[in-house]
Amino acid sequence: MHVIVDLCVVPLGVGVSVSPHVAACQRIIEDSGLHHRMHAYGTNIEGPWDEVMAVVKACHEGVHAMGAPRITTTLKMGTRTDREQRMDEKVDSVEALRG
Amino acid sequence: MHVIVDLCVVPLGVGVSVSPHVAACQRIIEDSGLHHRMHAYGTNIEGPWDEVMAVVKACHEGVHAMGAPRITTTLKMGTRTDREQRMDEKVDSVEALRG
Amino acid sequence: MHVIVDLCVVPLGVGVSVSPHVAACQRIIEDSGLHHRMHAYGTNIEGPWDEVMAVVKACHEGVHAMGAPRITTTLKMGTRTDREQRMDEKVDSVEALRG
Amino acid sequence: MHVIVDLCVVPLGVGVSVSPHVAACQRIIEDSGLHHRMHAYGTNIEGPWDEVMAVVKACHEGVHAMGAPRITTTLKMGTRTDREQRMDEKVDSVEALRG
Repeated sequence: MHVIVDLCVVPLGVGVSVSPHVAACQRIIEDSGLHHRMHAYGTNIEGPWDEVMAVVKACHEGVHAMGAPRITTTLKMGTRTDREQRMDEKVDSVEALRG
Repeated sequence: MHVIVDLCVVPLGVGVSVSPHVAACQRIIEDSGLHHRMHAYGTNIEGPWDEVMAVVKACHEGVHAMGAPRITTTLKMGTRTDREQRMDEKVDSVEALRG
Repeated sequence: MHVIVDLCVVPLGVGVSVSPHVAACQRIIEDSGLHHRMHAYGTNIEGPWDEVMAVVKACHEGVHAMGAPRITTTLKMGTRTDREQRMDEKVDSVEALRG
Repeated sequence: MHVIVDLCVVPLGVGVSVSPHVAACQRIIEDSGLHHRMHAYGTNIEGPWDEVMAVVKACHEGVHAMGAPRITTTLKMGTRTDREQRMDEKVDSVEALRG
């Protein structure tokens, strides 16, 4: 089962700046080899369900290992069985309709 | 790693009523034996990370098996290493402060 | 336009315990007179769009006024034009199908 | 109050393809003149709170006007009082740390 997710990991109890923790997650995502793209409020990742979910778990473990005592994450997850669809196609199909 | 999640599974391409699919998810969650509680916009579930995530995957598989060609899910996930915290305690600690 | 939302306000830069800020939001929601119910990962609120959104804004303003320098909120919002539906009906329709 | 949001509008009861409705939202967002950027699972928008929220409401109204009987939206909202921060800076600060 292929999944496209949007991952936003928020560490609590580490002060107001969370960019070191977000950067650590980016490295974990990058090391996974999965296709991904960061935006201003999260990161899109796509791939086989178990591989993507392993990355999400590794992000929680990594951010706790950096000293964050608490994490709250928002994850959107999209799957479909009617056809294959990639992250880039989702954006392209909307752009095409905007003309 | 103990996790408290809030799961909201939305099937697309099945018409305007999604309650049969949500009910199927409720049965899957119930059969897992994990502590959970449904509300008007999702279901809180808590337990060991891998068990909770297996339930989320089973919900996607179950809803696709019912004929839904597409699913979009929103999942909030909370973990903490400073202390154990249960779903009920989260509500109680806020209620106590409202006094 | 009637809306059912699920609101989860997370203050950053205030330490690991966020229950005072969540409790302040609960008081703001309660004072609005809108129908609502708290769960372990947010609060369901329903009512006219503008009234509900005014409460969401008041929560951000209130939590900043308490000293939180940064807030990240997750809000789910549901509207429908085919028929009226209340928070309680959403839960009831699923419960009915679970038998 | 400046806000950075991530908006994901999902129409229900319109079949499996939702790109026409997402494209309509993109036009509404574009017409607002607010700074925005689409990704594979939503659109980042930033600006004054009331202007951004007016766009979110206009998206719901526009998608219902296209015939969608039901909409479920996920909205992440970030505000801060310690300093100004723009969408592009959020990405840049993480990229800088990844070095």
